[in-house]
Amino acid sequence: MPYSEAAPRQGGGRLMIIGGHEDRKHDMAILRRFVEFAGGPDRRIVVLTAATKVPGRVWEEYDRAFAELGVRDRAAIHTLTRAQANDPALAEQVASAQGIFMAGGSQLRLMKIIGNTVLHAAMRQALTERGACIGGTSAGASAMSAHMLASGKASLQPEKGGVRLSTGLSFVQGAVIDQHFSQRRRLARLLAAVAHYPRLAGIGVDENTALVIGPDAGIEVIGEGGVTIVDGRQMHANLSEVAEQGKLQLIDVKLHLLPAGAAHRPGSAAGPIQDFLELLTGPDPLT
Amino acid sequence: MPYSEAAPRQGGGRLMIIGGHEDRKHDMAILRRFVEFAGGPDRRIVVLTAATKVPGRVWEEYDRAFAELGVRDRAAIHTLTRAQANDPALAEQVASAQGIFMAGGSQLRLMKIIGNTVLHAAMRQALTERGACIGGTSAGASAMSAHMLASGKASLQPEKGGVRLSTGLSFVQGAVIDQHFSQRRRLARLLAAVAHYPRLAGIGVDENTALVIGPDAGIEVIGEGGVTIVDGRQMHANLSEVAEQGKLQLIDVKLHLLPAGAAHRPGSAAGPIQDFLELLTGPDPLT
Repeated sequence: MPYSEAAPRQGGGRLMIIGGHEDRKHDMAILRRFVEFAGGPDRRIVVLTAATKVPGRVWEEYDRAFAELGVRDRAAIHTLTRAQANDPALAEQVASAQGIFMAGGSQLRLMKIIGNTVLHAAMRQALTERGACIGGTSAGASAMSAHMLASGKASLQPEKGGVRLSTGLSFVQGAVIDQHFSQRRRLARLLAAVAHYPRLAGIGVDENTALVIGPDAGIEVIGEGGVTIVDGRQMHANLSEVAEQGKLQLIDVKLHLLPAGAAHRPGSAAGPIQDFLELLTGPDPLT
Repeated sequence: MPYSEAAPRQGGGRLMIIGGHEDRKHDMAILRRFVEFAGGPDRRIVVLTAATKVPGRVWEEYDRAFAELGVRDRAAIHTLTRAQANDPALAEQVASAQGIFMAGGSQLRLMKIIGNTVLHAAMRQALTERGACIGGTSAGASAMSAHMLASGKASLQPEKGGVRLSTGLSFVQGAVIDQHFSQRRRLARLLAAVAHYPRLAGIGVDENTALVIGPDAGIEVIGEGGVTIVDGRQMHANLSEVAEQGKLQLIDVKLHLLPAGAAHRPGSAAGPIQDFLELLTGPDPLT
């Protein structure tokens, strides 16, 4: 089951892109919706802990949260090595799950362990063939995209070279995703990413907030905060005139702010959001 | 000399809109440029302290700074009451100055004391008739505009009713100005202002940074940080559908980021910045 670049997703299951710190103890609004999207508490839910160095502790939290939400068939998928992520038995546990949740940690660690493995292919299969819901929080959110925001300085102004992209899981093609967005003041680094890759939309998801991409290519924002979208396709940037680490001039970036409760379907929304939906659910604009 | 709404400024002197905390002890890059714009250290510079409750202490700092910059003819204009701001002798000191600097504090206090007084008229006269440079930092920056950002919550997301505008000094018509911008995370409140008044450009000036508007209607950014411009004239906002204090959805806001060193003249720059320059130096779009 080798990994291969998928065609733009149509149909299949939902993606739930969570900005970190989703509530796991009180109302659990986001995790509750995740369980719904997975088909309800009777379905199988697995939690991937590859991104974190403390998988036991992380699983403990999700184990308790999903138990409280009535999920009986729940399991951790602990992978510390690529060999484990290529274990067909473990991948089968993922392929048969209806909810696949990636916990936070480091997105580079996550990709190092599961990128282009049998486990990764199993996730894609579950998403596209069986309509499973894939959720990811923090590092697990950033890793959803083909072009992954790997690291970058939380500067006050976008800087040339101020952000590094790497290869992600490719569930979303045309966007780069940042998390803990408003809380960690990451607009400048997201703008730096878009300045370097103007054909990618920049998506910033706040804490305890999720951007849900539906099988119909519609989007929804749930939780407490908002989702910030920056679209640089018509931007004038002075990237070529600025030295490394120099401050960038960006003119005519399109900015969209979607608060919790926002929902847009293809064809129903304002033009600029249509453009974004096409980018979000279309093929990789960089290939 | 009654105060009257001026026509859009053409010719005349410069405005220097400073985001607060401009360096007053070390390189003094911004104050140094202010002295240049005022015609050099041989010209008369006055510092208005109406915005602050500690005028003596504030003047002491500027007195020392301008002394170091070689300015001999320098004076504080302390006004604690409107009666003082209507004193023709004091106003004459302002009318004859080539550099007029408004220190920080509260922009509401500043307006309460000098708005629509003889002093205010003297400032305008110095600016338009003799090409004086008017500088304002922090509260003094916000007060430059006709529609003044008076107060507002520094929330993470723009909220309906999350910002209050009031009447400013009207040296700039088509914009609302915020300061300490990146440092105090004020994008959301500036977006709230623009959501409520989409015909005004939102200008956010970082600390130790100045937006200079020249007599030729060109702009320049100097100092350490950047200037953020949000233009909501093509925005789709859901203001009418949201309850007071509700989070706003804003689609298709234009965002421009100008770092220190940026300079744009009418006719020379990218289209979107031309639009902004016209708004910035044109007549009041709300009247």
